[in-house]
Amino acid sequence: MNLNLNCILCNLKQVLAVTDLVNLDSDSKEVIMRDVLGYLQNTNYKRSNPEVIKGTWDIITKHIANTNPYREIKNHYNSEVMKIADKIRNLINQSEDKFNTALKIAITANLIDFAASHTFDEKMLLKKINIINEQFMPIDDSKKLYEKLQTAETLLYLGDNCGEIVIDKIFIEYITAIFPNIKVYYGVRGEAIVNDVTVEDADMVQMQEVAEVISNGDGSLGTVIEKTSTVFRDVFYKADVVIAKGQGNYESLSDIDRNHIFFLFMAKCDAVASSLHVANLSILCSEYQYKR
Amino acid sequence: MNLNLNCILCNLKQVLAVTDLVNLDSDSKEVIMRDVLGYLQNTNYKRSNPEVIKGTWDIITKHIANTNPYREIKNHYNSEVMKIADKIRNLINQSEDKFNTALKIAITANLIDFAASHTFDEKMLLKKINIINEQFMPIDDSKKLYEKLQTAETLLYLGDNCGEIVIDKIFIEYITAIFPNIKVYYGVRGEAIVNDVTVEDADMVQMQEVAEVISNGDGSLGTVIEKTSTVFRDVFYKADVVIAKGQGNYESLSDIDRNHIFFLFMAKCDAVASSLHVANLSILCSEYQYKR
Repeated sequence: MNLNLNCILCNLKQVLAVTDLVNLDSDSKEVIMRDVLGYLQNTNYKRSNPEVIKGTWDIITKHIANTNPYREIKNHYNSEVMKIADKIRNLINQSEDKFNTALKIAITANLIDFAASHTFDEKMLLKKINIINEQFMPIDDSKKLYEKLQTAETLLYLGDNCGEIVIDKIFIEYITAIFPNIKVYYGVRGEAIVNDVTVEDADMVQMQEVAEVISNGDGSLGTVIEKTSTVFRDVFYKADVVIAKGQGNYESLSDIDRNHIFFLFMAKCDAVASSLHVANLSILCSEYQYKR
Repeated sequence: MNLNLNCILCNLKQVLAVTDLVNLDSDSKEVIMRDVLGYLQNTNYKRSNPEVIKGTWDIITKHIANTNPYREIKNHYNSEVMKIADKIRNLINQSEDKFNTALKIAITANLIDFAASHTFDEKMLLKKINIINEQFMPIDDSKKLYEKLQTAETLLYLGDNCGEIVIDKIFIEYITAIFPNIKVYYGVRGEAIVNDVTVEDADMVQMQEVAEVISNGDGSLGTVIEKTSTVFRDVFYKADVVIAKGQGNYESLSDIDRNHIFFLFMAKCDAVASSLHVANLSILCSEYQYKR
């Protein structure tokens, strides 16, 4: 979906968040803010926000001379969620429908997102996960996903945020247990951007135990296909099923020219929620239909 | 106080709010957004946000060819609050300390502000007003204001928002009842900007019954002294006491070169709240001390 004018606020919030995080002096903050305002004034609004925000991110990281300002926080989130991984596995094992519970927990984990909020609260996450079966999904194509996986030979699972990646791995564990013949690829961003997962995060949670990790070769805050590497694009178009986690992947792939994509995410702003006719902060498993 | 980088978001929110309000098409919205981004990129950040946002407002209103897009809403808010005016007078009359109750209600009425939120809720306002004496004021210089009024001959009362103006009038009624020898001036903006009061609003609520209405001659979202008319400036500097309602007046007058100003408002953002070391959404009666 094209940039919504509200997305401009999110771009500027990143300027405020990152420059605060690295304790930049106010003069330097001002220089970055002015540069980003100039960029946003002139950039192409026909692109999706995940692509637009890449430009904002490049300006910020160039000025602060640090391409991965969230590295420590990302590592912290990954290790915190790794600590509760077995609790989550127990919860899934005790549930009647393991696939569905693992899927819902994987979507709920999408709330670990400091692009929207900076606070990670393990208690909140566990609380959310404990009431997972009471959570209403206004769009729930999980049965179709299950059916599609029954005949699929390859699955491309596009990750989104750090921390969340631990629970992606758990979901993939259950997918490969139920469908042992599926070859799973786990797609990560090609460069650090905000809290999105890269090869570094995949290594940290040992994603290679359950999937072949593949970088998309690009540093957008989502999957901007024409910017990704040819190797990644090849996997993307050949995969029988794509699971795309997170709002950034939804925003960047919501007009893509292939079917059998399932968007699993929490809608985190009115622009995205209203595009799907759901309430803000809804959790969703939505099958994409390509309109030729 | 100087513009905080967070104020840039508030400027852009006005673009989104007004262009939505007048149902502008998306291409025109984009043109205005780009113009405002360019303005904000290059404008002087050493000014206060009430002055900066005037530039944003001028761009918006020029594009939509309407200098007062909130006129109908302002009239609606004024008449809605006028309907509950007698309830408020009864409440004050039944209270032990009429001055203090009227003052607190006048500050609470500062929540009628669709620069921050578009929803006016009469019930919420009445509910807030009913529990007025339980409301904690982290800064409460109301006794000093009372003392100062005892010897004052002139009071300049600077208004802020529509709707709120009805309750300003009620507060002034009590001030003039207690201190009948004080000459009261009620200051309004010189041009329509967002929901701020102008002569039109003062006329609607018949403010002239209790005060001499004086326009400041400027269209900033506060009181930017060097932009105001000489007549207004003269009243401003000669008044024995100034009551300045609302955050815009606080932001624009927080470094002014005179004493005996009492800021009565609700802090509506972190930038302003933290400048006074109070929690966001606090209600305050704060005497200003000029640091020569």
